Amino acid sequence: MHAVEIIEKKRDGLPLTREEISWFIDAYTRGNLPDYQAAAWLMAVYLRGMTRQETVDLTLTMARSGDILDLSDITDYAVDKHSSGGVGDKTTLVVLPLVASCGVPVAKMSGRGLGFSGGTIDKIESIAGFNVNLPADEFRRLAKENGIVLAGQSLQLAPADGKLYALRDVTGTVSSLPLIASSIMSKKIAAGANGIVLDVKVGSGAFMRNLDDARALAQTMVDIGRDAGRDVIAAISDMNQPLGYAVGNALEVAEAIETLKGGGPDDFRQHCLHIAAHMLKLAGRGERWTDASEVEKLLIGQLENGQAFDKFRQMVQAQGGDVRMVDNPDLLPQAQWTETLVAETGGTVSQVVAIDVARAAFELGAGRETKDDPIDLAVGVKVHVKVGDEVEAGQPLATIYANDEARIPRAAALLRKAILIVEDEVQPLPLFYQVLYSD
Amino acid sequence: MHAVEIIEKKRDGLPLTREEISWFIDAYTRGNLPDYQAAAWLMAVYLRGMTRQETVDLTLTMARSGDILDLSDITDYAVDKHSSGGVGDKTTLVVLPLVASCGVPVAKMSGRGLGFSGGTIDKIESIAGFNVNLPADEFRRLAKENGIVLAGQSLQLAPADGKLYALRDVTGTVSSLPLIASSIMSKKIAAGANGIVLDVKVGSGAFMRNLDDARALAQTMVDIGRDAGRDVIAAISDMNQPLGYAVGNALEVAEAIETLKGGGPDDFRQHCLHIAAHMLKLAGRGERWTDASEVEKLLIGQLENGQAFDKFRQMVQAQGGDVRMVDNPDLLPQAQWTETLVAETGGTVSQVVAIDVARAAFELGAGRETKDDPIDLAVGVKVHVKVGDEVEAGQPLATIYANDEARIPRAAALLRKAILIVEDEVQPLPLFYQVLYSD
Repeated sequence: MHAVEIIEKKRDGLPLTREEISWFIDAYTRGNLPDYQAAAWLMAVYLRGMTRQETVDLTLTMARSGDILDLSDITDYAVDKHSSGGVGDKTTLVVLPLVASCGVPVAKMSGRGLGFSGGTIDKIESIAGFNVNLPADEFRRLAKENGIVLAGQSLQLAPADGKLYALRDVTGTVSSLPLIASSIMSKKIAAGANGIVLDVKVGSGAFMRNLDDARALAQTMVDIGRDAGRDVIAAISDMNQPLGYAVGNALEVAEAIETLKGGGPDDFRQHCLHIAAHMLKLAGRGERWTDASEVEKLLIGQLENGQAFDKFRQMVQAQGGDVRMVDNPDLLPQAQWTETLVAETGGTVSQVVAIDVARAAFELGAGRETKDDPIDLAVGVKVHVKVGDEVEAGQPLATIYANDEARIPRAAALLRKAILIVEDEVQPLPLFYQVLYSD
Repeated sequence: MHAVEIIEKKRDGLPLTREEISWFIDAYTRGNLPDYQAAAWLMAVYLRGMTRQETVDLTLTMARSGDILDLSDITDYAVDKHSSGGVGDKTTLVVLPLVASCGVPVAKMSGRGLGFSGGTIDKIESIAGFNVNLPADEFRRLAKENGIVLAGQSLQLAPADGKLYALRDVTGTVSSLPLIASSIMSKKIAAGANGIVLDVKVGSGAFMRNLDDARALAQTMVDIGRDAGRDVIAAISDMNQPLGYAVGNALEVAEAIETLKGGGPDDFRQHCLHIAAHMLKLAGRGERWTDASEVEKLLIGQLENGQAFDKFRQMVQAQGGDVRMVDNPDLLPQAQWTETLVAETGGTVSQVVAIDVARAAFELGAGRETKDDPIDLAVGVKVHVKVGDEVEAGQPLATIYANDEARIPRAAALLRKAILIVEDEVQPLPLFYQVLYSD
């Protein structure tokens, strides 16, 4: 096959065959095809799109480009979840132990944050000693013995995706539906998942800004799952305002622990219950957990009887983390300075613009610009209000947690811009807009 | 400026500013921008197009990326010509001395052939000793003293175009109207031309296969010329059948010499007279040569009185070529084997498919696949008939000139396929379809 002919075919809007896609991607991954040819191809894909069949073929080619995690000795049906990324999204920290406490093993590889979006691996590292760099046999042993393990993503999972993603990042070809969908799904398939719950965020703090785009992404991933023989549930959830109150690594861990103990912000708790329920539904595959209200009762019970929390504690202990920080979240990294913003007038909260809250946390040092930048685990923001809340003048709206006092004014200005209070009545934002199923 | 933002802007179909284009192209030419970003940008340009202003800005940026030939000490108005490339196109070899013999200096840089299209520099090298690698001062001296010089293209003319063209060639982004037009025009502007005659070929043996595409290319180049302050005449000429009879380097030089001596194939002679007349029209700038029939008379006179031929001979001598080969073209490289194809039935020639004739010559070794391949100057094809000619069974249609007997059958098969004879009456093909002017 000839690279230029494949580029030209895509450029002219013609669908590529499975053989052409796998030849091109394999050649690129092995270093037999230069970056510039892959870049031209990516731009052609961006502007010409891909058929469903092409997208599935690309996904499976990338999934098979490296190791495929085989979890069959741990469970005959592995469930995974994925979030498209949002502000204050600490869902994995709650859902993982919650689902595991119901007897469904979860062996999860997560990522680090970049830009305004946080990463589960950064967050969990707020707990001193927690080791995310597990050798394959250790990862497997913990999954088997404890039914729960959370590690960083090994370099050998879907290396084609990693290489293509790095190229997309510098060639203006990130925001392409088939490329995003195949990137996510290839990693989930390589990570050994039989059933996948996708949390597709939509709103100002998400990659997808409007519902149509989010629906299209969700549908594409559900289609890939169906064609690739995986069960997929895609939940489209709101990301116009932050999820929960806390945005920032240690702050979010503390909020997750609070939620695992039966408390936590109502929106975040509900969000976790929904995602966990979808995971149980997949894991039960029509045999167990068919009655939705029973599943809900079970999950609420696991939060209230302490079993979800115990599972989290067990995971932290098994991976070398300091369990005293779990038992007493005040021991987690704390910022030196706090400053609280109050409402200037009374009214109803009409907006808590997620992206501006993320910018404020980023400004304080909670995120990284490039992948080698250090991050400050202690800093961040807590927003105390949700869209639709009534507030009185003088009521606290948000608290800033800083280690560099000089950064506070800029963060405060961003938060002031983010939180809008109006006189009219405002409806709360929904948690979910739609759920799509592959079967 | 940021490369990714410029790529994204073009990707989204937005016009780039002059500053963005020149920043991007300059950075790429200097090696400060990687190939993969230029490749993504080229594909975005291919699929999104460019406005007239963008195309002009790209042209001038590329023209200024290296040396600009200043011919002002030789003439206050430099005329150049360019052909978009065709089969049997030896026009420069005739037009250059023809125009120079009228007192209009011509200092021309030409290219080598690649693939099925020949190059003037390869052709002229059929004359033993002819030196195309002239230092700048020698090039300039010959132009000044003799009013004629023909050399290979210096690497320093429009290096941005050279670098971009090499990348386009391997990224499926060659056939883009603004990229083709700016590539041609940037080189002509860098070569110091004030007036440019463009010979835009259309047909099976040309880059542009249909008249609409050729018109669009011609119009774009005329527009660039106007906006860049250059006078441009674009003649759209037929390239469905070869120009003249000879296809192959030494064979074409012999045909050019024949034409310079007042003979030659009628279509080729007419073609040269037209192109030369356009060059004189530009060089006269409304002062001389305003009367078309007088110009025609003048040019025919220069062919018949031997002055055009003398100019050619002077050029060959000045550049170290063996003038005996000019005086007696039988001394030019000769092929060992010849084979003549004859008509199997009588009728009218309805097609002499130029691209198939080019393939036959290529098959015999007249062309090169990659730029470092050697070529055989002696081999090629002479087609003895033109579309519309009546032929009788047994009449010679074409002669093959080969140095490797084993290649003859394949070349013969290609020629048999190329030349179609029918019973119906067939109109001859026109020489020109349209002429566009920048003023």
